[in-house]
Amino acid sequence: MDYITEKFSKLGCDNAPGQETLQKQEALPMEGDPIPGTPVDFSHGDVDAHKPIPGSLEKFVEGYVVGGGHQAYTEYRGKSDIRAYLAQKLTEFSGAPVDAASELILTPGTQGALFLAMGSLIGRGDKVAIIEPDYFANRKLVEFFDGELVPVPIHWKDVDRYSGLDLEALEKAFQSGVKVFLYSNPNNPTGVIYSPEEVAAIGRLAKKYNVAVIADELYSRQLFDKDQPYTHLRALEEKPDTLITIIGPSKTESLSGFRLGVAYGSAHIITRMEKLQAIVSLRTAGYCQSAYLSWFSEPDGWMEKRVADHKAIRDDLLKVVAKYPGCWARPTEGGSYIFLQLPALKVTLDQFVKLCRAQAAVTVTPGTEFGPQFTDSVRLNFSQDHQAAVAAVERICQMAQRYHA
Amino acid sequence: MDYITEKFSKLGCDNAPGQETLQKQEALPMEGDPIPGTPVDFSHGDVDAHKPIPGSLEKFVEGYVVGGGHQAYTEYRGKSDIRAYLAQKLTEFSGAPVDAASELILTPGTQGALFLAMGSLIGRGDKVAIIEPDYFANRKLVEFFDGELVPVPIHWKDVDRYSGLDLEALEKAFQSGVKVFLYSNPNNPTGVIYSPEEVAAIGRLAKKYNVAVIADELYSRQLFDKDQPYTHLRALEEKPDTLITIIGPSKTESLSGFRLGVAYGSAHIITRMEKLQAIVSLRTAGYCQSAYLSWFSEPDGWMEKRVADHKAIRDDLLKVVAKYPGCWARPTEGGSYIFLQLPALKVTLDQFVKLCRAQAAVTVTPGTEFGPQFTDSVRLNFSQDHQAAVAAVERICQMAQRYHA
Repeated sequence: MDYITEKFSKLGCDNAPGQETLQKQEALPMEGDPIPGTPVDFSHGDVDAHKPIPGSLEKFVEGYVVGGGHQAYTEYRGKSDIRAYLAQKLTEFSGAPVDAASELILTPGTQGALFLAMGSLIGRGDKVAIIEPDYFANRKLVEFFDGELVPVPIHWKDVDRYSGLDLEALEKAFQSGVKVFLYSNPNNPTGVIYSPEEVAAIGRLAKKYNVAVIADELYSRQLFDKDQPYTHLRALEEKPDTLITIIGPSKTESLSGFRLGVAYGSAHIITRMEKLQAIVSLRTAGYCQSAYLSWFSEPDGWMEKRVADHKAIRDDLLKVVAKYPGCWARPTEGGSYIFLQLPALKVTLDQFVKLCRAQAAVTVTPGTEFGPQFTDSVRLNFSQDHQAAVAAVERICQMAQRYHA
Repeated sequence: MDYITEKFSKLGCDNAPGQETLQKQEALPMEGDPIPGTPVDFSHGDVDAHKPIPGSLEKFVEGYVVGGGHQAYTEYRGKSDIRAYLAQKLTEFSGAPVDAASELILTPGTQGALFLAMGSLIGRGDKVAIIEPDYFANRKLVEFFDGELVPVPIHWKDVDRYSGLDLEALEKAFQSGVKVFLYSNPNNPTGVIYSPEEVAAIGRLAKKYNVAVIADELYSRQLFDKDQPYTHLRALEEKPDTLITIIGPSKTESLSGFRLGVAYGSAHIITRMEKLQAIVSLRTAGYCQSAYLSWFSEPDGWMEKRVADHKAIRDDLLKVVAKYPGCWARPTEGGSYIFLQLPALKVTLDQFVKLCRAQAAVTVTPGTEFGPQFTDSVRLNFSQDHQAAVAAVERICQMAQRYHA
């Protein structure tokens, strides 16, 4: 097998959210009758149940009608007035200044930001530290850019709050010559956040060992406990010399259909990211860029209600989970995920996921997408219709009992 | 310099269309007074002068309002009903069948299609043949994916019609072990098209030497001479085993602000492209995908008028060029470009381009973007306001006289 064929044989997306329809039919070790109920796709959020920020469509239309050619053909890093707007909002949000001209780039979704950042930082053979478990694209990106994966665990099951980041493993990884460290905060899929001490340690160690850091803060506006502090790495005194923070309005704000993301931080990396954007897709769709202007300017109380709605769903899901022996999840601290641990099963995790779809009309993402060792868990995005989600989690737990080893 | 730093130091986008504002100010060897006139940016088309397909915005709004979550979260390769629609249209257009399920992917612009196709085909160290001159991103993509560039010339200045493809050089390149061949037809920047014999030779040689081909047919709906045949490589009997054709509605149809492109062809490469899309930007913006439905369904006569309007601009620009000694261009056969050859200058090409912007309010793209040897030419996208374009070309030619060696 040649180099490129091998590379793509390792790169899969059949289990990625929304891609399940592409999977080949296979015989499943099916037992019992279907469990009826409203179908729920927990692989991604439901923007019909939780609508986009009011006025976003109107911003798009305004961009098309009033902006015309200037809105269609922006600089590759994004339209300058929109960058100025976001630089100000993100300065306030993250607690550290952002220069609109040099330190920020608009990207096609947060995925676009992540791809450009990784492509701008990973040289062939470079060691890249990632958290396990963490967002599934992280490991694929390291492989695509010919980096070497150095996993660092979080012991989230062993603590009640925060991530349980293994600081010893992190330092050991950095000592081994890691060039880049990537982590999501809140963590995807567990929904835990990093404590002030954990973030401070990341900053201190990255500085000490000269490691570039990408902080994926996609869900950082959706935090459930006002008394639990959230720390932006970029706002710390002691922080890495090279730091890129990424965020976007696709999740909490439900603007995924516009494909909007932002990366901000070290100017020399933003410059590289724009060079890469120039050969990847030129720019975030020009007219869509107008919709950034509704982000961080939501109507009064809208964000508070959005977060409260999700907290209420989370609480009800966890009550269901608690009823079933062998089923367990840490309460989500930020974001819309629960990482549901299942009892030992007599089918494989992949089979269980397919059985849930076939017999219980529920789509979930297998834990193995977040690290090969997570064969006992599935991820649920609970940004769904409240009642439908509660009923669907009941069905998952019933399925787990049915296929219990 | 480490591997990644060196890679990005070679990758530039300051001269890319729309990026000129990022260039640093420098002292220019300025002579004479400014030549006044309406500013024209020939680096890309003007979608205010040539509006998007009527109804495109309405399609977008319908996608948002009616499609909702299903429109926001499509498969990574694009929404299936839209792929079915385009597969039928592209089957008719290209003269060979396209399977919607396996042979087509929607991409963020044609740039997105090109990036995904190149990333799916080029292994590290692979030889990649490209035409010189050709679209500037082609060579950058080869470099980014660590391929080895093998240039093949077209002798378009030596012929009156078609590209003047150097078939001997092409075969020699293929003999040398080239894995991938990429060409745009109509050619960007010269606007020449490939004759039936030239395309047949590409097909025959690619088949013989087992070379994968990417045919960039972005401008293939905008052909000026109805009696001059245009040949789709994919419709030939003798064609490469691996062939990807790319096209999009960003140019002739002025939908660039939506970032829409399509790649279609060999199923195993489309599969790879989707895997890559999954880590690059997930999908073409969901709501934007709705606007594909206005493409290839333009109102009666709309495309004919669009092409006629551009032909009229072309003719008037060439009349201006013909007045000035030392200035020359082949008449565009397809697309919106002329590749304007200048007389010998006493300033560098880069300086001349900057002087045109500073003194004549005209932005053009330096020929060196299309191959390092094209130091005597600039590219103009003449999809502009007719009168403003004519006046602006006058100014460019006057500037060429002023800075004549």
